[in-house]
Parts: sequence; structure tokens; C-alpha cells
Amino acid sequence: MFEVKETDLAGRIGRLRTKGGTLETPALLPVIHPYRQEVEAGLVKELGFEAVMTNAYLAYKHYGPELLEKGIHKAIGFDGVVMTDSGGYQVLEYGDIDITPEEVVRIEEGMGSDLAVLLDRPTGLTRDRAEAEWTVSETIGLAKRSLKVIRRRDIVWVAPVQGGVFEDLVKLSAREALDLGFEMLALGSPTEVMESYRFDMLVRMVMAAKSVSPFGPFHLFGAGHPLTIPLAVAMGCDTFDSASYILYAKDGRYMTDWGTVRLEELNYLPCSCPVCSKGLEELMEMDEEERVRNLAIHNLYVLKKEVEATKEALSEGRLWEYLMLKARAHPRLYQAVKLLSDYVDMLEDGTPSFKPRALFFFDELDYGRPEVVRHRRRLNWMRKREKLILALGTGERPFYGSKVHREILKALGDRAGEFQISFILPPFGVVPVEVSDVYPLSQNEAPEGYLEETAKLLIPSIREYVESGGFSKVLVLDTGSGGEFLSAISSALKAELVDLKGLAQA
Amino acid sequence: MFEVKETDLAGRIGRLRTKGGTLETPALLPVIHPYRQEVEAGLVKELGFEAVMTNAYLAYKHYGPELLEKGIHKAIGFDGVVMTDSGGYQVLEYGDIDITPEEVVRIEEGMGSDLAVLLDRPTGLTRDRAEAEWTVSETIGLAKRSLKVIRRRDIVWVAPVQGGVFEDLVKLSAREALDLGFEMLALGSPTEVMESYRFDMLVRMVMAAKSVSPFGPFHLFGAGHPLTIPLAVAMGCDTFDSASYILYAKDGRYMTDWGTVRLEELNYLPCSCPVCSKGLEELMEMDEEERVRNLAIHNLYVLKKEVEATKEALSEGRLWEYLMLKARAHPRLYQAVKLLSDYVDMLEDGTPSFKPRALFFFDELDYGRPEVVRHRRRLNWMRKREKLILALGTGERPFYGSKVHREILKALGDRAGEFQISFILPPFGVVPVEVSDVYPLSQNEAPEGYLEETAKLLIPSIREYVESGGFSKVLVLDTGSGGEFLSAISSALKAELVDLKGLAQA
Repeated sequence: MFEVKETDLAGRIGRLRTKGGTLETPALLPVIHPYRQEVEAGLVKELGFEAVMTNAYLAYKHYGPELLEKGIHKAIGFDGVVMTDSGGYQVLEYGDIDITPEEVVRIEEGMGSDLAVLLDRPTGLTRDRAEAEWTVSETIGLAKRSLKVIRRRDIVWVAPVQGGVFEDLVKLSAREALDLGFEMLALGSPTEVMESYRFDMLVRMVMAAKSVSPFGPFHLFGAGHPLTIPLAVAMGCDTFDSASYILYAKDGRYMTDWGTVRLEELNYLPCSCPVCSKGLEELMEMDEEERVRNLAIHNLYVLKKEVEATKEALSEGRLWEYLMLKARAHPRLYQAVKLLSDYVDMLEDGTPSFKPRALFFFDELDYGRPEVVRHRRRLNWMRKREKLILALGTGERPFYGSKVHREILKALGDRAGEFQISFILPPFGVVPVEVSDVYPLSQNEAPEGYLEETAKLLIPSIREYVESGGFSKVLVLDTGSGGEFLSAISSALKAELVDLKGLAQA
Repeated sequence: MFEVKETDLAGRIGRLRTKGGTLETPALLPVIHPYRQEVEAGLVKELGFEAVMTNAYLAYKHYGPELLEKGIHKAIGFDGVVMTDSGGYQVLEYGDIDITPEEVVRIEEGMGSDLAVLLDRPTGLTRDRAEAEWTVSETIGLAKRSLKVIRRRDIVWVAPVQGGVFEDLVKLSAREALDLGFEMLALGSPTEVMESYRFDMLVRMVMAAKSVSPFGPFHLFGAGHPLTIPLAVAMGCDTFDSASYILYAKDGRYMTDWGTVRLEELNYLPCSCPVCSKGLEELMEMDEEERVRNLAIHNLYVLKKEVEATKEALSEGRLWEYLMLKARAHPRLYQAVKLLSDYVDMLEDGTPSFKPRALFFFDELDYGRPEVVRHRRRLNWMRKREKLILALGTGERPFYGSKVHREILKALGDRAGEFQISFILPPFGVVPVEVSDVYPLSQNEAPEGYLEETAKLLIPSIREYVESGGFSKVLVLDTGSGGEFLSAISSALKAELVDLKGLAQA
């Protein structure tokens, strides 16, 4: 049902097979109102969206039993993959609704949804643990009841995961859903989290669920903001739905690559979509209804572009770089992406060992990058010799073939075999010369001054390498540059600082 | 001739009046070949470019004397502002050309250029100082000869500035041009700098020229890369020309917001322009000529979007934030934008004292932001009292009305008048409570942990404030949080760490 083609961080490009067609993921599913469409479903398809989300409950309430004959695709006018939500969100918004989980299954089967979400009991953002526990146990109960009446196996059934801000409850909810046999999960309730820019909470919630369900397809409810898309993808969300394009449009908000701006506050249109080529003046002069429609179409263009840009970054193996760059659009997002380093094990799995391009490093954030953490871990497996020589890495790569390496070998002469020669390279820490041509140790670029500016993170990792190595002697080589840093290092290691001449006599 | 409407950093939105129309700046002028146009000039105009650059020398060589009757606008088919380059760049590329500065003036006047660049002698990237000096003195000599024969005063004459990587020569060249009475300057030779991603060199060259000519309109030759546009604008370049859209297209390179990718290496099209809506497959299947044309049009869309996004950021007062975000696309750009802090005086002039939105802070880069440096300088003018109390700033803004301020006043009682109460707030340093509601001291947002993570830059600025204040007593208030940081501060200042109870007795 779900096949992964490429990965980077915890993100993946995959193919999700449904009876309505195969959907390439990650995919954003615009939310389509079942009968009141400001942007008609056909146009949404033309804009490049292969799948949409609509509401089974509202559709059935409106169309009645004839929907079951007509089918949801014809009813909403979308010739592609249709995912239906159960109506659980309406419970959160309007209190109880008069529908049972059995009825939801019956109408979703009847209307022929391609992906169908079970009825659930959303947790929302409550801080009341007892209440959250109740919604999780209710959601599990509803899933069990749903399971009993499911007949159509050609539909991808999606089990909602609840628990809100309680990570252990999110994990419990996800585990129970998997145990019931559901392959695709959907994390509920993050809409409010995202509306309040609590991206850190979003990271914790998603990573809790993904820690339980790292492999199967994973849906995130309501991630339709240009800043949440790369974050959601990097965490391994495969599909996400959002009504943001139309909700923002109705509120007069124009999406950009970095967020939203009120249309009347804009002076320029930073976009090349057909709507924006009409110009700001024409947009402002439209009547309300036409402007909302045009804004919504523009917003869809921005979202589509963001999904494609994220997929391209993933496919080029620079999803980390892209995400860190987007993070500088808002301090809350910046704070959230820093949290990703806490989940580096989960990110490392998907990060390829080889990429067709050099890694770019910029600042301290990059010390938490999976490739860097992976290198440090690998260091422990490497054979170490009796004595250690540490030298500053230079621009000559690989270090194996560098001038300074040749000079060290020459100075050591017959004693070269006694020494482990290793180079210092931020943010990796220590690079033993034997592996210095292994990707990405020679394929990376950082700004000048990176060593000095991130020394406080670099020194501890060097110390750890030296201490775990149990060398009988540690020499720090002074070749004339990086004096201040080398002094700091040799004093931190209580190691002797020697020049090439000193090395010959050491 | 040139009117500035809005400013941010050293950048400005302005109106440049020419006989061919008023041009809103900053503006990118696509380079149009005088008679071989892969993308016809009319379409360039339709894409939203109000002005183009073409080559007077090549145009005249091709069309001959009839060009002087027809006029350059008709000849190239562009109904807008036409800037003509003199041919100086051809000297650099092909050696001497057989044209005199007098002839260049004559043909530019004859063909009716709206903006006309004088003949010059480009320095290029030579490291040979004597050679660079020679090109500068030649360029000045050519400008003097040009000046003598200029008759048409309705043309904006643009004086080239040379000097290459020698900043003093760039300054000399700019000063001489201004002394001759030219109002608009154009910095030559950065194309090679940009092609080799030496953005740091670009910063030094532009800022050298701008230090001499901060007010008049300023042209930068060849800045047509999505990463150089915001940088050029932030430094105060008003116009820039580039043939990159077509040169890259001929080389099969597709522009993105972050750089360029070879078309055959792309998997997705991160763009919403009409070309990209055709899809990658259709682009790949086109014949060479059609593909080059389509790529070139796409590249123009990307460049246009970048100019608009930069102008929008400038107009919202977040050009700094936008530039720092773009800087994370390439380590060389990151390195270059850091250099901007060396020119903070030049950036501060244009940075408004009030902006309609909160400032966003992220990391150490923001310690060099003009608003931050400005605040630190203003601190020196403020009246100081005999004794100082330093407290950690909290989320309650302004500090004036915060709980901790009320508690301090209560603890001090009658002695409040003796104390200067100041709050610690990164990246500003110290905020005296009296000015704590002055923009942007209450209007800013930073990620959690910003104080601890940038402490090494924060502590020296606090120390400077304390030392220059000559206080008879300095107390650091411990309200229970930020313990480690407060200990570091009190020991750096040799100040007493007290709690509220201690304050009542102090």
C-alpha cells in the first residue's frame, strides 16, 4: 500500500496506493467543502493537487442517501484521490454530534472514500490529563467499534491518534491503533497548536507518534502553513490536509513563502503565480467574493510551491539545510527546529550516507545535524593507535592527501605506525586521516571563522574522542595558524603543543 | 532626478526620473541583446520589468547610422526605460575596441538612451595594484573626455566606478566621478566576483563606493542571482543589470529562490510561474531552442519575484531578517552578510526608528543588527543615577509595568531615587527601565534560551554599560531564574548578587 522511494531526515518521498489512484507523498490535501466551494474541486486538481480532503459527515448530512449512489468523487467534482474526515473535528467545535462510528464507516464505504478517517474524540489542547486520557480511551473504543463493521478492504482506513500535548498518551494512542491493525495513522488536534505558532509542541507531538509508527503512512491534520510544511515533512508526515488557503483568504490574508500578510498591508506581490501577475491594484479593486476566490487560488499556488520545494530539497538531500533556512522566518519555528536534535536517532535513519552534493554548514545548529552526529558515533568503532597527533584541518581535501599530512609523515619517519593522525574539523569534531575521504568528511563547506565561532561546541567533542581513545600520548600540532584555538585545545586536553620540528623529536 | 520614498538598512525604495519614464527602484534591468533576443523585449516588459539594459556599442555596430534616426527603443522593441552600456565590458572580454569616449556619447545621445553609461576601462579582478591604478586613472580620463562632449542633459549619464578589489581605489574612482558632477554611479567588474560566489568581496567593493556616494542613485553591474539581489539592495544598490536569466538558460540552469540547479538534476519544480505549470516532463521534451526560451522566461519570473520580495521586506522594515534568512542558502553568502556589521553606521542611517512590527531575533548574527547597535549607542546619552540594579528581563513588556519592577520599587521604598533600575535583554544588552517602552525594546521576539546561548556576546555589552556608568554600587537581582547566567554576570562585574529581601536591606 505504501512504498518509500527516497528519504532524508525522517522525511520520505513515497507512493501511497489507493483505489482512486496512486498518490505521491508528501502531499498536501486541500480541504474541500462538500457543497460550498469557493474554489471548485476541478480547479484544485488543475493546480496540481492529486488528492483532497472532505468531510464525510457534512457531505452525508447535505446530500442524504443519494450520496451513497452518486459517490463522493462525483458529488464534490474531484477526479482524483479523495480522503474523508469523519466529523470528529465537529465534535471538538460544536460539541456532540449525533452519529455513531458504525454509521461513519457505513457512509464512508457507501460514498467510496479512497482514504477514510474513523470517528474519534479529539483531545484538543487541554492541559487536563484526565480529560485527555478519556479522549484517548474513547478514540480507541471508537476505532474498535469501527473495525468490527468495516467491510470494504479497498479503502485505506486511517486511525486517528489523540493525546494532545501529553506525549505518553499520544504514544499509547498510536500503539493501540497499530495493534488493532490499522496501517495508516493520523495525528489529531495540532491545528490550534499551529495557529498559536507553538511549533515546539507540534514537534513533540509528531515525534511521539512517529516514534511508535516510523514506517507506515502518516497523516497530520491541518498543516497548511508555508512554515509548517517543511517541518512536517522532515518529521515524516506523508500527508496533511488544510483549509488554510480558503480560511486565510476569507480573512484577507495573502500567503508568502514565509507566512501570511494582510492584503491591505502589502505593497508588492512576491509571487509569480497567475493571480499575482494581475497586480496588487487589480486584486484590491475586485469585489469581496472575487478577491477571496483569487486570494485562495494564490494561496494554493504558494502551498503547492512549498510542497514541491520541500520535495526537491528532500530529493537533493538538503532537507536539513532547507528547514534551517525556513526556521529563520520566525523565532518560534527556530526554537522548534532546534528540538529536532533531541530526536537525532529518528532523523538519522532516513538520512542517506551519501549525497550527490557537499553539505553546507553555517552555525551551531549544524552541530546537531544527523550526518555530524553519525560521524561522531562511528568514531568509536575505529581502530586507534597508541599515540595521537591532532592537527587543524585545512582547505585541502581529503586530509589524507594534504601537504600537512605529508609533512607529519615525514617528521615521524619510521615511527609513523605508532601514531593515530587525526584532523580537527567543525562541526564533525575529529576526523581520523584514514576516513578523511569518506563522505561527507571531504564534501562540505562552512563560512570562514566557523572553527573559532563554534569552538565552545567543538572542544568538548574533541575531548571526548581523546579521552575515550586511551592514548598514551597526545600531541597537538601547531602549524602556525589557529594559535588561540590550539592553545585552548591543548590546555583542555592537557596535551603538548608541538611544531613539525618538535614532532620529529617527539 | 532621484527621490527616496522608504528606507531600511542602506536600501531604499526610490523613484528615478528619466526621459523614458519614472523607474521605481530597486530595479533589475534584464540585459537585452540589441538584435538577437531569445526572449523578445516586449515580453520582458509584460513580465513586469520597466527597464532594460542593452549595449550601445553592439547596437551601433549592427544597425549603423540608421539607429540614430530610429532610436534604441524602437530598435530593440522596448517601450520603457532603456539603459545603455558603453562597451567597456567588451574591452575586458575581447581586448581593445576601436571606439572613443566621444563617439560613445555621440551614439548614446543619437539613439536616445534614457540612462547612458560612459566608456570606461574595467579593472576586473586583477590583484596587480599598478594595473588597477591604471584602469582607474584611464576611467577618470575617459569620463572627463566624455563630459566635454555631452550635449543632451535629458539623459541620465552614469559614471562607471572602477578599482576592483582595491577599496581605496574604488573610493578614489567614485569621488572623482562625483567631483566631475555625475549624479549616478555604476560599480564595475563584480560579475566575476559573483560568479565565483565571492560575496564578501562584493560587500567590500560596494560599501567602499557607497561610503563615498551614499545618496545618489547607484547602479551595480551584473547582480542577477537570487542570492545577490537582497544583498545588493540592502547595501543601497538601486539598479542592477544582468544577463544571467539567459546565460543560465543556455547552460541548462534553472533558477530557484536559493540558487540554480541543472534542469536534468531537478525532480520537482519549486515555482508557480506559468512555465513551471507546464510540468518538468514537458520542459525536458522541448527542443533545445524552445527549452532555452522557456527556462529564460522562468528565470525572469524568479528574478522578478526576488526583487518584489526584497522590496516588500524593505517596505515592512524586515530587510535584515530577510537577508539573514537568505544567507543560510550558502556559506559564502553567510560569511558576506556577517561583514555587514562592520558597516553598521552606514546601515543605521536608513533603518527607521519605528517599524510597524516586532523585530525577530534568532542568533548571534542579530547582535550586529542596526537597531541593536543604535540602542547601545543611545545608552551613553541617558542620565544615570548613583547606584545600579540589574535584573533579568522577563516576558512582561514594557519592563516599566512588570511585576518585578513593582517589586523592586517596593523593596527600595524611599531609596528608589538613588537607583538606576535596568533590565538585561538580549541582544540589546541593558535596557534602562525609563526607556523600556521605546520601540523596539518592547516589540521583539526571540527563541527560548536566546540569553544563555548568546551570553558570550551579551556579557561584554553589559560590562561596558556598567563601567561607563561609574556607579558607586552595582547590584544584580536574583529572582530565582537564570541562576547560572546571573552568577556569571555578577562575577564578571564584581557585583553583589541579591534577592528582593537583600535589596530591601541593601
